This record gives sequence, structure tokens and C-alpha cells, in this order.
Amino acid sequence: MANHDALPLVVLTEQFAKLPGIGMKSAARLAYHVMAMDAADVETFAQALLNARRTVHYCQCCENLTDKPLCPVCEDDSRDKSVICVVETPKDISAFERTGEYRGVYHVLHGLISPLKNVLPDDLKIRSLLSRVQNGDVQEVIMATNPTVEGDATAAYISQLLKPLGVKVSRLAFGLPVGGMLEYADEVTLYKALENRNIM
Amino acid sequence: MANHDALPLVVLTEQFAKLPGIGMKSAARLAYHVMAMDAADVETFAQALLNARRTVHYCQCCENLTDKPLCPVCEDDSRDKSVICVVETPKDISAFERTGEYRGVYHVLHGLISPLKNVLPDDLKIRSLLSRVQNGDVQEVIMATNPTVEGDATAAYISQLLKPLGVKVSRLAFGLPVGGMLEYADEVTLYKALENRNIM
Repeated sequence: MANHDALPLVVLTEQFAKLPGIGMKSAARLAYHVMAMDAADVETFAQALLNARRTVHYCQCCENLTDKPLCPVCEDDSRDKSVICVVETPKDISAFERTGEYRGVYHVLHGLISPLKNVLPDDLKIRSLLSRVQNGDVQEVIMATNPTVEGDATAAYISQLLKPLGVKVSRLAFGLPVGGMLEYADEVTLYKALENRNIM
Repeated sequence: MANHDALPLVVLTEQFAKLPGIGMKSAARLAYHVMAMDAADVETFAQALLNARRTVHYCQCCENLTDKPLCPVCEDDSRDKSVICVVETPKDISAFERTGEYRGVYHVLHGLISPLKNVLPDDLKIRSLLSRVQNGDVQEVIMATNPTVEGDATAAYISQLLKPLGVKVSRLAFGLPVGGMLEYADEVTLYKALENRNIM
């Protein structure tokens, strides 16, 4: 946007452009779209922004996002509290919940250890995980961070802290994706699939 | 987002998903991003939304978006008020201003005639264009709508209303884009380029 545009429009465009994955062109398109929206709809949008940021916080137990003291998973008595699935972000919980198969609970780290990005273990929600394992009746902790260098390193680090507490620590299986084709699998995935092969 | 997500987060996701070009997955990503933003930054964003929608309105003269009575182009005494460039949206003005060559003024229609989409001439800012031509010292009106069926039809319709007022009406030139290659030009563009050829 150039200086012939109305200032409030330029300000709004800059705000949209700060969001991830939205460049200046898309931001300008969104700002123009807001101009064409009903005033009441813009109020609703602004209120949803403020409301979400003000009322949503971390679950006291698992650090998932919630607007109540406990998140719906931790509050659900039918969930198996003895199994904790450790994930990087709240988004990952949605992925597991979509499978409809997992009946345990979660713990959100809110990041991965990455000395290059200046993220150290103390910046993650590791301490609350340790106290859950120490104080609760936990049988198994599943490390479900992504299969990346940082995800693997974080899983290994936490696993070392957990093992002395006498709890079983497991890692998600890595191998061929279901429906995937051998010829398109990358070498590391194929090696993992071979290494972790199961007896038929 | 599923029912295990905090309600304010679901509401915010739905709001983002209403914006053009943003699907449910991107909307969820944006909502999670807002959760990680500073509370003050979210306030600024919400305020920019409300402020833009509340203070920006149509220019009294050319119907461009502005937060003052007149837009910067109409207010600029150095602009040639005798030439009016008629465009579909305020965005189109930005495109012309970027060329830095056009010194006339604009008129924004805020749409194109489209009986299929139930947009009739009365829904566009045609009446204010006619009264500008009738009351001002206008020499030429340039129809700068897009070269589409609707853009051409709207240009033809307005041109018929303007001609009896004794004003020169012109249409943007259509031909090969500068830097384009003959072999990649579509047939209609090539035909237009041939039809509108210039003596060297």
C-alpha cells in the first residue's frame, strides 16, 4: 500500500501481514475485505480476537490450551490418566484426537529444545511433566514429538529424566505411511521401516 | 477444530475462516498463533480492525476509500481534474498509482454490472460519476475496468450514458503484455494486439 491509501487501512494491512503465511499482497486483500464487511461482523471478529487471547490459558494439568481450569481431556473421567502422550504443540492433540483411538491424556511442551534458536529445556513445560509423573499414578509416557532432529533430541532428553522415576517411556513408531508407496519413500523412512520391522 | 478445543479458540478459528482465501486449517494455525502473541499486540490488532472499519469511508468525490472527507488524490491540487479514470475497486487505484505516470483523478464503481450475481447498475457508483461529469470541467473519462465480459459490459453501459454529455470516453488498450512472448499469448489477446496495431 502506498501513501495514497487511508492510514487506518495501511495500519490494518500491516497487522494482517504480521500473521504467519500472510504476505503484503494477501494482507492488503484482507484489509480491503474488512472494509466491505458489515460493521457488526468486524466487531464480532475483533471481540473474538480479544476474547480468545484473554480467556484462553494453559491447562493446570497438561498445559493444553483451555478457557477452564482443566482442559476437556484432563476433566474427562473416562480417559486413562496412567498414560501420558507428550506433544510439542496443542495442534498435535487435535491430530491424535481425530484418530479416536487414543484414550490416555496429554502433556504439551510448547516447543522443542533447540540451542540454535535459543530454546533451552527450561523454556519448555518439562518441569510440570516431571511433577505429574512423580505425583500421579503414571505407568507410561509416550514421546510423540515430530521425527526431526529437534524432536528426537527433546524426546531423548526427557526420556533420560523420566527413566529414573521408574516409568515406562516409549516413542511413536516411524516407518512407511499407510497407503504410501515404497518408490516414493525417502531413505531414512525406509531404513526406519526396515529396522522396526514386525514379525508376521 | 473439534470439541476438545477451548470454545473461544473455536470461535476465533471460525472468524478467520470467513476471510477470503483462508481455509479451516490456516484459520486454526492463525488462531493458535494469536494465542502465542503478546496480549498488547492482540489489542493493537483488534483496535486496527475496528478503527479501519469505523473511520474509513468513501471519498465524497471519487468513492475511493479514505478516512478524510476527500481522498488524497482528489485533495491534490496538482492532479488534472479534467481526466477521470473509472475503476472497479480501490485496489485498482493502487495499481495505476504505482506506474507513477497517471496525473488525472479516479472514480471507483465498487463492482461491475452482473445480472447473474444480481448486481445491477443502481448498485454501482454510476450516479455520482454522471453528476461529476455534468457539474465539473471533465474532458475525458477512461474506462479502466478489467478486460472480462462483465468489465467490458460495464464499460459499454457507462460509455453510452456519458456520450450524450459531450465528454470523450476512452477504453484501456488491450494487447500483448510488455515482456510477454507471442507463443504464450492466448488467441483473444493476440487478436486484440493485431486489431489495435500501431503505425511504426
